[in-house]
Amino acid sequence: MTGKASASSELSDVRPGEVVVDLPSEADAHIYFIGRIATPWTRRADCPRKGDPDNGPPCRVAIDPRWADALAGLEGTERVQVLYWMDRARRDLVLQSPAHDGTTRGTFALRSPNRPNPIASSIVRLIAIEGTTLVVRGLDCLDGTPVVDVKPEHCVGAEPQ
Amino acid sequence: MTGKASASSELSDVRPGEVVVDLPSEADAHIYFIGRIATPWTRRADCPRKGDPDNGPPCRVAIDPRWADALAGLEGTERVQVLYWMDRARRDLVLQSPAHDGTTRGTFALRSPNRPNPIASSIVRLIAIEGTTLVVRGLDCLDGTPVVDVKPEHCVGAEPQ
Repeated sequence: MTGKASASSELSDVRPGEVVVDLPSEADAHIYFIGRIATPWTRRADCPRKGDPDNGPPCRVAIDPRWADALAGLEGTERVQVLYWMDRARRDLVLQSPAHDGTTRGTFALRSPNRPNPIASSIVRLIAIEGTTLVVRGLDCLDGTPVVDVKPEHCVGAEPQ
Repeated sequence: MTGKASASSELSDVRPGEVVVDLPSEADAHIYFIGRIATPWTRRADCPRKGDPDNGPPCRVAIDPRWADALAGLEGTERVQVLYWMDRARRDLVLQSPAHDGTTRGTFALRSPNRPNPIASSIVRLIAIEGTTLVVRGLDCLDGTPVVDVKPEHCVGAEPQ
């Protein structure tokens, strides 16, 4: 697969003021989807602006049985970092206009789904582990979103405030 | 490239108690490296256990000129999330023994570089932007590590404590 091929199926319109670049002709590395996320949201317009780890609805992160052993020891972890793949994003936008008003900002100055590598990072609260499925609060993504990684999240205190 | 091909060049030994699985035969998505990170550390043994955004040495995140416009508006952002690709990791470990003592934990219960998709996430302090290079504190990776994404980091307060 190439970037152009994968992007062409789901391209959103380029808004006034937005700028696109040619994607590289070659990929540098590849991703295995390790599972899928089930959420209540089937249209991007329905997704919350930001997930709420305290009061958001429970979502289910279903991990492929191939990786079942990799969940050993995660039980009891309160906060988990979930990396997922925003597979409906376009990858060639360098200047974007989130407000639809023609004023633009750079892609790396935004957390927009549209970026060269459309990987999202969310810190969620782990409620339960049922088999190879994590039940969590704090996601804001579309139902069916592919999972890229799951990591324990520890030291917010170590981050700059 | 395939997972086995890319992993075979840099495989670390499997320790007592560690378990590997067959990688999927097909990739699901692909990554473009958007730049490279320059750090003082050329051997994994030299890397700090965790980056220090306050007192760590300045490191340079050099973004490919193709993406120069995507940095517009990042200046003035204090905290930045950097996603990078741990290209010396092995991707097939599901149970790991970080303490080298035969006791193992699942890959998703660890922040080890060895994981199906070896993507690291670091919150760093942005010191300066020089052309298309970000000067930051808080990284702990090897010199030459490929960059996958750069995002502004805002609301630690919104994360569960």
